[in-house]
Amino acid sequence: MPRDPEYRRQVEQIFHAPFVQALGIRATRIAPGEIESELVVRPDHLQQDGVVHAGVLATLADHSAGGAAGTLAPAGHGILTIEFKINLLRPASGRILRCRAIVLRPGRTVTIAESEVSAGDGDTFRLCAKAMVTLAVVATADVRR
Amino acid sequence: MPRDPEYRRQVEQIFHAPFVQALGIRATRIAPGEIESELVVRPDHLQQDGVVHAGVLATLADHSAGGAAGTLAPAGHGILTIEFKINLLRPASGRILRCRAIVLRPGRTVTIAESEVSAGDGDTFRLCAKAMVTLAVVATADVRR
Amino acid sequence: MPRDPEYRRQVEQIFHAPFVQALGIRATRIAPGEIESELVVRPDHLQQDGVVHAGVLATLADHSAGGAAGTLAPAGHGILTIEFKINLLRPASGRILRCRAIVLRPGRTVTIAESEVSAGDGDTFRLCAKAMVTLAVVATADVRR
Amino acid sequence: MPRDPEYRRQVEQIFHAPFVQALGIRATRIAPGEIESELVVRPDHLQQDGVVHAGVLATLADHSAGGAAGTLAPAGHGILTIEFKINLLRPASGRILRCRAIVLRPGRTVTIAESEVSAGDGDTFRLCAKAMVTLAVVATADVRR
Repeated sequence: MPRDPEYRRQVEQIFHAPFVQALGIRATRIAPGEIESELVVRPDHLQQDGVVHAGVLATLADHSAGGAAGTLAPAGHGILTIEFKINLLRPASGRILRCRAIVLRPGRTVTIAESEVSAGDGDTFRLCAKAMVTLAVVATADVRR
Repeated sequence: MPRDPEYRRQVEQIFHAPFVQALGIRATRIAPGEIESELVVRPDHLQQDGVVHAGVLATLADHSAGGAAGTLAPAGHGILTIEFKINLLRPASGRILRCRAIVLRPGRTVTIAESEVSAGDGDTFRLCAKAMVTLAVVATADVRR
Repeated sequence: MPRDPEYRRQVEQIFHAPFVQALGIRATRIAPGEIESELVVRPDHLQQDGVVHAGVLATLADHSAGGAAGTLAPAGHGILTIEFKINLLRPASGRILRCRAIVLRPGRTVTIAESEVSAGDGDTFRLCAKAMVTLAVVATADVRR
Repeated sequence: MPRDPEYRRQVEQIFHAPFVQALGIRATRIAPGEIESELVVRPDHLQQDGVVHAGVLATLADHSAGGAAGTLAPAGHGILTIEFKINLLRPASGRILRCRAIVLRPGRTVTIAESEVSAGDGDTFRLCAKAMVTLAVVATADVRR
């Protein structure tokens, strides 16, 4: 099936998910097979030792991968994460987190994407986490189970 | 090195991490090599389709695994997640999420734990996610880098 | 769809895969949702430092998980690994490797299993690796692509 | 500690591991933080359905990542895989498998690498698997435990 011509609107909607809004994650670029997203770090995103909590990085990586998969989904289909793995490469320090997610392998029922999360400020961003994400492409009726 | 005799206090502190407090995660059992934790689901934990966001499940699984590893850490040492992988087995539905994390293999510098997350209400809880987590045991001075 | 009543024969066939035969892996128990398997360690299974190569453990864990998923597959369907993650918990030492794989979550199109690999001799076996495996359930015509 | 000036020799030795020799894997490029490797597909590498067994791809990906980490290890140190995750993106078809492994994040005690495996013939190679690998950097005395 061809991808939804309204994919941009569908993916924007994914970024209105309550948890994503609560964390302050927003999409900054939506293109076929690719998402860029951003989050301004707040005190309530932190671990007890002052670095960004792995759960924030994981949410950003997973959700952006879902968005990237969503750009290629046929009309009437949604995306569900089956599993992901994330490596935390460096403590995320800096005022802003940026994520770039790309589809490695689109599929009719299963899509694989990867996400890179960088942390920084101004012009200096450093890769701090990388995730591989396996996603199901599901008819929307089945998503709302 | 023997584990910190004050491990319970140290692990309670881990659960005061700002992001963990913000999500409403609390430890319900702390024992050597084992943590149980709980979260009451709120509207701001949800995905756009009404199920709990994978990022919430991942945070609960990762943080509880870190707590379990922390119970075995020597005094003056903290825990950092190196990586984790989580499989989402079923949509998390129900008012409460419960997590049980156990250490599979304690180590001097690297510890492996796994977490099971169940969702439910009253007496009926169903396994909805399972994670394997690799953690570094680090002298506290190095954690606060 | 109900599972294949001939599942035992189908799964035995999976264990005739050339690479599995070449390594000497054989199924020792086949039950619905569960496989036990075994391998006698040979010199050509080893890493340069004398322990069993991670690739041998990974093959045993992945293949047994595929077998476990296969026991629940409908007639005319096969199993393909989508991804797996394996933690090596201890060096595998001992003359025999044993694997137990169970299905965590069976599905119509995607099944999740986990595998535990133990190494030892006689009565003393120690857990040395654990894997989580995501598998596709595919109509056999599609498997032979 | 600076990396071993004899790293090339050390990594060549890693590729003499018995299991790696048995599969026919050889290094085709060794550079700081990077390995390329190759394997000519044989009938005994195959799954029951005629594609290359996931265990072969996993061995190639894991071992090459270990080699890439090894190029950056200090003298007197070896590499042990802690865990890896591999996504199988497409069935590996073609006469030759090629792997490129790079270090994403070198560390004093833990190094993260990723491996891409392509399959093909002549000039046409397609990405068929991607792995993320977490490795321990260990004093050689500790490796030979």
